[in-house]
Amino acid sequence: MVDVTGKAPSVRQARATALVTCSAPVVQALRTGSVPKGDVLAVARVAGIAAAKKVPDLLPLAHVIGVHGCQVDLKVIKEGVRVEATVRTADRTGVEMEALTAVTVAGLAVVDMVKGVDRDVALRDARVVAKSGGRSGDWSRPASADDTGGTQDTEDTGSSRISQEKQDRHCGRS
Amino acid sequence: MVDVTGKAPSVRQARATALVTCSAPVVQALRTGSVPKGDVLAVARVAGIAAAKKVPDLLPLAHVIGVHGCQVDLKVIKEGVRVEATVRTADRTGVEMEALTAVTVAGLAVVDMVKGVDRDVALRDARVVAKSGGRSGDWSRPASADDTGGTQDTEDTGSSRISQEKQDRHCGRS
Amino acid sequence: MVDVTGKAPSVRQARATALVTCSAPVVQALRTGSVPKGDVLAVARVAGIAAAKKVPDLLPLAHVIGVHGCQVDLKVIKEGVRVEATVRTADRTGVEMEALTAVTVAGLAVVDMVKGVDRDVALRDARVVAKSGGRSGDWSRPASADDTGGTQDTEDTGSSRISQEKQDRHCGRS
Amino acid sequence: MVDVTGKAPSVRQARATALVTCSAPVVQALRTGSVPKGDVLAVARVAGIAAAKKVPDLLPLAHVIGVHGCQVDLKVIKEGVRVEATVRTADRTGVEMEALTAVTVAGLAVVDMVKGVDRDVALRDARVVAKSGGRSGDWSRPASADDTGGTQDTEDTGSSRISQEKQDRHCGRS
Amino acid sequence: MVDVTGKAPSVRQARATALVTCSAPVVQALRTGSVPKGDVLAVARVAGIAAAKKVPDLLPLAHVIGVHGCQVDLKVIKEGVRVEATVRTADRTGVEMEALTAVTVAGLAVVDMVKGVDRDVALRDARVVAKSGGRSGDWSRPASADDTGGTQDTEDTGSSRISQEKQDRHCGRS
Amino acid sequence: MVDVTGKAPSVRQARATALVTCSAPVVQALRTGSVPKGDVLAVARVAGIAAAKKVPDLLPLAHVIGVHGCQVDLKVIKEGVRVEATVRTADRTGVEMEALTAVTVAGLAVVDMVKGVDRDVALRDARVVAKSGGRSGDWSRPASADDTGGTQDTEDTGSSRISQEKQDRHCGRS
Repeated sequence: MVDVTGKAPSVRQARATALVTCSAPVVQALRTGSVPKGDVLAVARVAGIAAAKKVPDLLPLAHVIGVHGCQVDLKVIKEGVRVEATVRTADRTGVEMEALTAVTVAGLAVVDMVKGVDRDVALRDARVVAKSGGRSGDWSRPASADDTGGTQDTEDTGSSRISQEKQDRHCGRS
Repeated sequence: MVDVTGKAPSVRQARATALVTCSAPVVQALRTGSVPKGDVLAVARVAGIAAAKKVPDLLPLAHVIGVHGCQVDLKVIKEGVRVEATVRTADRTGVEMEALTAVTVAGLAVVDMVKGVDRDVALRDARVVAKSGGRSGDWSRPASADDTGGTQDTEDTGSSRISQEKQDRHCGRS
Repeated sequence: MVDVTGKAPSVRQARATALVTCSAPVVQALRTGSVPKGDVLAVARVAGIAAAKKVPDLLPLAHVIGVHGCQVDLKVIKEGVRVEATVRTADRTGVEMEALTAVTVAGLAVVDMVKGVDRDVALRDARVVAKSGGRSGDWSRPASADDTGGTQDTEDTGSSRISQEKQDRHCGRS
Repeated sequence: MVDVTGKAPSVRQARATALVTCSAPVVQALRTGSVPKGDVLAVARVAGIAAAKKVPDLLPLAHVIGVHGCQVDLKVIKEGVRVEATVRTADRTGVEMEALTAVTVAGLAVVDMVKGVDRDVALRDARVVAKSGGRSGDWSRPASADDTGGTQDTEDTGSSRISQEKQDRHCGRS
Repeated sequence: MVDVTGKAPSVRQARATALVTCSAPVVQALRTGSVPKGDVLAVARVAGIAAAKKVPDLLPLAHVIGVHGCQVDLKVIKEGVRVEATVRTADRTGVEMEALTAVTVAGLAVVDMVKGVDRDVALRDARVVAKSGGRSGDWSRPASADDTGGTQDTEDTGSSRISQEKQDRHCGRS
Repeated sequence: MVDVTGKAPSVRQARATALVTCSAPVVQALRTGSVPKGDVLAVARVAGIAAAKKVPDLLPLAHVIGVHGCQVDLKVIKEGVRVEATVRTADRTGVEMEALTAVTVAGLAVVDMVKGVDRDVALRDARVVAKSGGRSGDWSRPASADDTGGTQDTEDTGSSRISQEKQDRHCGRS
């Protein structure tokens, strides 16, 4: 584990996305809330937020730091489910792995709940897309042809949010 | 998870209580230390202190913060066992859920150990009774007719404390 | 930890209930889904199911056994939120503590999400109400004047279920 | 959580794969074991095996069952790192999520250790590719144009295995 | 993780011991229950029992199996504290690591609580001393000159037991 | 849990060592990397680093603090395997138990992987050997006749390091 005792605590944020691809019938079931195993998006969101806090336990070289804000959103799109997470900390190292682990585990939870009706379900393209704070400052991944879903998609049926914090407490998702 | 990166670290404390109601024979067995499953109060106290540290794992929207002091006391009273916990932190958000989870899980541990001889054992009235520090400052719950056990009870047979820290290290229980 | 190597695996089930009491304004906010921190019932349900699986970690003397079915339901009633959990196993010891821990932690999650708008919120009357299987067979707690919420209450606005397993896979809640 | 008390214990196995895509310089560093953060493959393998055992904790609706065999292999290929996991159980439900979680978390561990030198590192195409046992019997995913890495790649420099169990204890990876 | 799907479930037991060496003043404080941090033996015992259940989480290649009985005893002797644990399972692989981890972590808990008054405290000689069941049958470690503490020591002031299960439920400690 | 809210965050470090004694054939197998269960040193190292982060979960009275650096090294010597860990934090209390737990659990992992070929394997002499920072400042344990392995031993075949951080990020191992 890299020694970070010499780093200064400051506000740091990271955002990650992932895509779970499903068959068209399953996408339809997700939109109408009729997947046999239940409220997929709600369960997956909670699993994602919880996972952001389990990073020191999952990743051997990860530090134990404070997790001071986390938001996970899931949106049903044509290809399946797009997951996005933003994590914030005022501690001494970045939270890229917290954000990436959040979208990944939320994606696994979606897979867990739909695999009974769609054997080809897959978790694809989990990546960090932006970070801010810390010594290396701001960075975002340039958009590319390689990008999967979301920004172009205007349909948000099925999208729901667990948290309705007021704007001044919002954790920074653009 | 609410974004708390903008809050200032400061000393915060919270106290909670709970009551486990048991039959009279079980209360007697607790007083004399003759419950078949063993030293109920000692096990429950450890379970309570440990649980204060598991809050981010148990409660999906709870933050990962430092737990810098915790005291759990159990007292056998006429109605059963009264549990009280005080938790302290110098981090950036309150520890009400840490204190409430401590008394609740300590209570569950008591239930676990006496249910074999008392099927009606129940965990009742787990609540936060006081907090200090943070932006909203000090608060204590007004005493009410609704209160269960403890303050009026002068019998403390069976009460024991794991920690005998010297007074200057005491974590603030009145 | 009691030695259960001599017990025969068989189907065992346990059901528990708890009540979280809230103020009238909070009950109203729960019914209309307008609690600031979000979808309280969905988050609490997931927390409850997850907690049933954490019993060996929370309760020192609890055995590590299989958890083979779990259902948690929350219902908004006049007094607050009534929680009910049914847990099933085909392993060698009962799941009373799994059911009780599920309702208790689901209740703590409700408290966590509403305490910011209701300081008197409390977790009350968490108890096992029925069990079946095992050597001691079937048992249910006789109804009493002491009972809190639920069975008499016909209003179920706000009640939602994560799982829509088909009837033949239902885990036995009456 | 679906009720599986009625299912018969039997031997079940599942295999999953994932791909972590990295830049060419990072692939080279992985082959030569010169990534600054150390022995990436060894750490990722352990993280993957450990994660197969954390599934009930990560996925809210997952059952607590026995994990009776697990093998995780990582291979450096042209595109990055291909991860494969095979999990076995003699319990009462399949281990598809255990296998998928193993490759996913092993992949996250790789990301964690190379992201400092490759910001575009991504976890791609994590999916279950085969399963056997249980009521639905054997299934494997048909090979497709969509497949990422591994089977065509004959270079296995950097591939290493933690476990050298003798053949008769091998857990079934083809 | 070795594949144990082919092994038959049967009753298996293992016993381990460890020694924590302390200074004479600390031994005296342990006998009189006057260590500043509290009831050392009670806390250590609970930590040991809990640790037996955490083995799959602590040891990467350990299987997830049932833990069906566990007893941990601590005895103050001239040299310090002797710890002994017996673990039982009716599952498909031995519990030697469960027993060894129990005595080791109980020992660490003792160290944690006395190190403030004894910097030379050490955990010594943690080993498995007997096992039964399974294909390799019964084995006990021959007594040797190398043995540390316990069997020769007749003073058991300070020894206490959490569990008073009736004899017919005793988990086999000689 | 002792109240540490009044302590000032500062850089603190602790180092611990342990020895796992094995038979000569096992020592030879470790040197040549031919232990049946695989790459023992790599797995044990990861287990040790991960364990440093599990201290609040393993030790009831341990605080939840940041773990900001951790290094674990294993060296095969004549007697067996010598384990050493250095842990660093910039938080408010020392990390002696984190270092001791790291060497202890790494040692248990070694035992787990060689016990099948060496029943007398034992974990011996786990102790804190140095600490710095905090109010009590620097301390190291004087070398004594009682010391087991390592400093005198010049053979380091089999020694390997997971982390190759640059010197300016090194966490302080002498």
